[in-house]
Amino acid sequence: MALPPNVSAEDFAAALTDFAAAVGDDWVFSSDEDVAQYRDSYSILWGEPEERVASAAVAPANVEQIQQIVRVANRYGIPLYPISTGRNLTYGGAAPNLSGSVVLDLKRMNRILEVDEDRHFALVEPGVSYFDLYNYIQERGLKLMLDVPDPGWGSPIGNSLDHGVGYTMAPFRDHFGSHCGMEFVTAEGEVVRTGNGAIPGSDGWQDYRYGVGPMIDGLLAQSNFGIVTKMGFWLMPMPETFLTGTVMVPRYGDFDALVKEVSYLEDSFMIGLPDFGSPSAEGDPGGPMAALMQNGWPSVEQLEEFVSAQGMPAWSVELRFYGPEEVVRAAWGAAQRRFRDRIPGATFEDGYFWRLPLSAEDVAENPRKPELGIPALEIFDMVARKPYTNDAPWEGHADFFAFLPRKAEAVHKAARMMYETYTEVGAPPVHHPFFTPINYYSRAYIMATLVPTWRDPARNAQSRALFSLLLDRCAENGWGVYRTNPAFQEQAVSKYSYNNSALQRYQERLKDSIDPNGIISPGRYGIWPAGMRSGRA
Amino acid sequence: MALPPNVSAEDFAAALTDFAAAVGDDWVFSSDEDVAQYRDSYSILWGEPEERVASAAVAPANVEQIQQIVRVANRYGIPLYPISTGRNLTYGGAAPNLSGSVVLDLKRMNRILEVDEDRHFALVEPGVSYFDLYNYIQERGLKLMLDVPDPGWGSPIGNSLDHGVGYTMAPFRDHFGSHCGMEFVTAEGEVVRTGNGAIPGSDGWQDYRYGVGPMIDGLLAQSNFGIVTKMGFWLMPMPETFLTGTVMVPRYGDFDALVKEVSYLEDSFMIGLPDFGSPSAEGDPGGPMAALMQNGWPSVEQLEEFVSAQGMPAWSVELRFYGPEEVVRAAWGAAQRRFRDRIPGATFEDGYFWRLPLSAEDVAENPRKPELGIPALEIFDMVARKPYTNDAPWEGHADFFAFLPRKAEAVHKAARMMYETYTEVGAPPVHHPFFTPINYYSRAYIMATLVPTWRDPARNAQSRALFSLLLDRCAENGWGVYRTNPAFQEQAVSKYSYNNSALQRYQERLKDSIDPNGIISPGRYGIWPAGMRSGRA
Repeated sequence: MALPPNVSAEDFAAALTDFAAAVGDDWVFSSDEDVAQYRDSYSILWGEPEERVASAAVAPANVEQIQQIVRVANRYGIPLYPISTGRNLTYGGAAPNLSGSVVLDLKRMNRILEVDEDRHFALVEPGVSYFDLYNYIQERGLKLMLDVPDPGWGSPIGNSLDHGVGYTMAPFRDHFGSHCGMEFVTAEGEVVRTGNGAIPGSDGWQDYRYGVGPMIDGLLAQSNFGIVTKMGFWLMPMPETFLTGTVMVPRYGDFDALVKEVSYLEDSFMIGLPDFGSPSAEGDPGGPMAALMQNGWPSVEQLEEFVSAQGMPAWSVELRFYGPEEVVRAAWGAAQRRFRDRIPGATFEDGYFWRLPLSAEDVAENPRKPELGIPALEIFDMVARKPYTNDAPWEGHADFFAFLPRKAEAVHKAARMMYETYTEVGAPPVHHPFFTPINYYSRAYIMATLVPTWRDPARNAQSRALFSLLLDRCAENGWGVYRTNPAFQEQAVSKYSYNNSALQRYQERLKDSIDPNGIISPGRYGIWPAGMRSGRA
Repeated sequence: MALPPNVSAEDFAAALTDFAAAVGDDWVFSSDEDVAQYRDSYSILWGEPEERVASAAVAPANVEQIQQIVRVANRYGIPLYPISTGRNLTYGGAAPNLSGSVVLDLKRMNRILEVDEDRHFALVEPGVSYFDLYNYIQERGLKLMLDVPDPGWGSPIGNSLDHGVGYTMAPFRDHFGSHCGMEFVTAEGEVVRTGNGAIPGSDGWQDYRYGVGPMIDGLLAQSNFGIVTKMGFWLMPMPETFLTGTVMVPRYGDFDALVKEVSYLEDSFMIGLPDFGSPSAEGDPGGPMAALMQNGWPSVEQLEEFVSAQGMPAWSVELRFYGPEEVVRAAWGAAQRRFRDRIPGATFEDGYFWRLPLSAEDVAENPRKPELGIPALEIFDMVARKPYTNDAPWEGHADFFAFLPRKAEAVHKAARMMYETYTEVGAPPVHHPFFTPINYYSRAYIMATLVPTWRDPARNAQSRALFSLLLDRCAENGWGVYRTNPAFQEQAVSKYSYNNSALQRYQERLKDSIDPNGIISPGRYGIWPAGMRSGRA
């Protein structure tokens, strides 16, 4: 059995007894078999000494039990690692940052406390999944649309606290940005409510999030400043219809104008998540594209020639419109006019048009579930397809999501850098000159690459080398990342180093002030308690 | 000359000398005449011993000078009160929370560092005003729209840090919510950059605000956790057109359905700031409305009879649409269809339609400047009109903005409570059964009332009694406030008292950790440094 750092076996046993006194014997897990359930099945350190593993887990039923657990943890100096549904795959799953931590498993706290159809919000506990919330809304026929990540088995609270994203309109895609009000238990067992929730008797907890004075909510995400027990989320009222249309532009050099116009539509709240593509490059990966790349990265002239030879548009973007039929049709028309005015040769193709909400039968068959806020697990099929590789099936993956400015130049530069980095470590490159960004956060581009993980240490070593080098190369270009698995959080945070990492030092002082014994998630996103900080560098 | 608390005249003189060494003699202000410039001309405590007054002011030219000033302040224990343009009228103006503080006047730091027309953002310093930023954009012909508060002479940084609001689309109306990235100087003189700004060489500071790890930005607003020296703001790309239309509904009881449908349009990002009105009550205030109120608050039946007798719609809402002409016309059409389906007897009136950007001549004459993001000072004319009072001209006012849920029931309840509270303290009531809320923050309603302030202590005493009682009565109903002037911040914060004010105690511990000597804005929004906390209650 693993032990928490600097905790004796006797003290640990005593702590487990005290945990059991708080939650009942059935909800403390310390057998090897039980604790193994909390391993990260996608771990890039699987089976190695550095793999992050828990010592035990404890599953409280309510806030009062969390308060008791926290007090026990302080008494014995035991680090706790709170999880919601524990589905944070590619970002560490249910495994802690620090080996020997006790996982605080909040799955039993799964009440949907309120869903308001007129004011368009939900208030939930950490153990509620997107499926749970979706089913609750469907059963009651509420005219509300969720915004869901891939896949849908995760928790709105867990996902938003890790800065997760979705697929509908920009303000809802930012899952932390669309929260309003939270309740959390501090490292010392106090219950805090933020925003209007701090006013006793308020019926406006999900109406306004700032309250008066400073807003502390941001401290609770990607971090270790408290154990979130309730959160409110703003939802989108169900639109009357959903319409898609695809814009295609003929030349490689048109990407710059395409990006600018999509940014215009995004920032005007006329569209949902735009989906970029590159039709001329989407054929057989072993065919023309392989030939094009044979002598290294092509010149712009070669790329334009390639596009001409393929006889396909260089780039495309699918636009998604939400709203009344007359509005979405007008918006798609206006978008076409604007693209036509700016990009000679742009062509257009109508896509889907559906009235909402869909019937239950139509939901089952729908090919665009995430864009309609319908939780699903179909992403696992997509991930298994792995374009441009003919390698063995992956056993897992570690998402590498770099943030770029919304500029064609940056996108092309990042694609080339990633191609060269893959090549350098001997991994089959997945990037090419037509690689396109994702616009989850509406004001930035994400260049996403899925680094494979295995149960094979040698293969994982290559993946780690690749991941680490990608982090370095991105930072050299001024690009950060969205989130990473615990194995790379330290390195990722080290890139945010302005003025001798003044931001991190400021965060650490805040952390010390409210968690003096450092019991909540030590090391999460580079924030260590004072007693563990010295060994970091 | 006022002195900071617990600072000797000798130490204060030495500190002023050190300030002058940092910024030059010309930029330290300590004569009575100069310091009087920093008085709050709207103070509800004008001329009384409790009026909040500065001891001196110092105006740095750059970040390095702020760092020097902060070090001097720590050496002598001198509280600093940072202001941007110092125009925060009704919320304290340029005067500090704590008398004897030295105002840190950032007006000289007025550089517009970057405006990106394709990515739609601006990066500015605290001394930049909305007029400055607007003129910069106009001079360069950039296709960007600002979101401005009333009036336009304030600072985007100062306004957003006080959770200020504007008049266009919801995501931009929330001025703090639309910021992306900040730089601040800590209480100990360190320079911190947040979000992507912490990555050296990043070109994406204004693209993504979370960075990795916790987001601390929320701590810097309505508070005292640092001195903000740069902030980025997301801007709206210039829409092609602007269209307004008014919906009118016949019955008093229609307000409930009106509210719900406006919330639908708001949360679907189909409209800008909706402007509610009550046509049947907007006649001569001394006429039918006075008669209606003669015997106290009328019953619903009496209100419906009143509306019938007036022969006017009970309620109205002006909707504002931004976008391409085909989209705004379709959206106005769809809105009419939706209202017609839900509210029998709803009628509609077309309003303005303008192509944007307006020409310089059209700007000068435009009657809807704030809705078009054009900074103005015309609000001062409006405020001077004071409906429903025949009192002496005000010398100032203290805004009382309560937050309510978006519910007809809450709006009517608040109107009645405010009417009764005014009556109770002997002030001429301004509220009536048709009083309408403002929807600055798109998910909440604000019931706004302007409490007059004077240079006359007796009149101000009545205003203070009114303000204080309104705060109490709102809290009894579970309603908080948006922001208040320093005289009432302590009381306002005390209403956010859940679990023995756990939120405030958490904030205070954070504050102590990063400002151990308590030199930045002691007392701002109820957050006192450890050494001054004991006397609060």
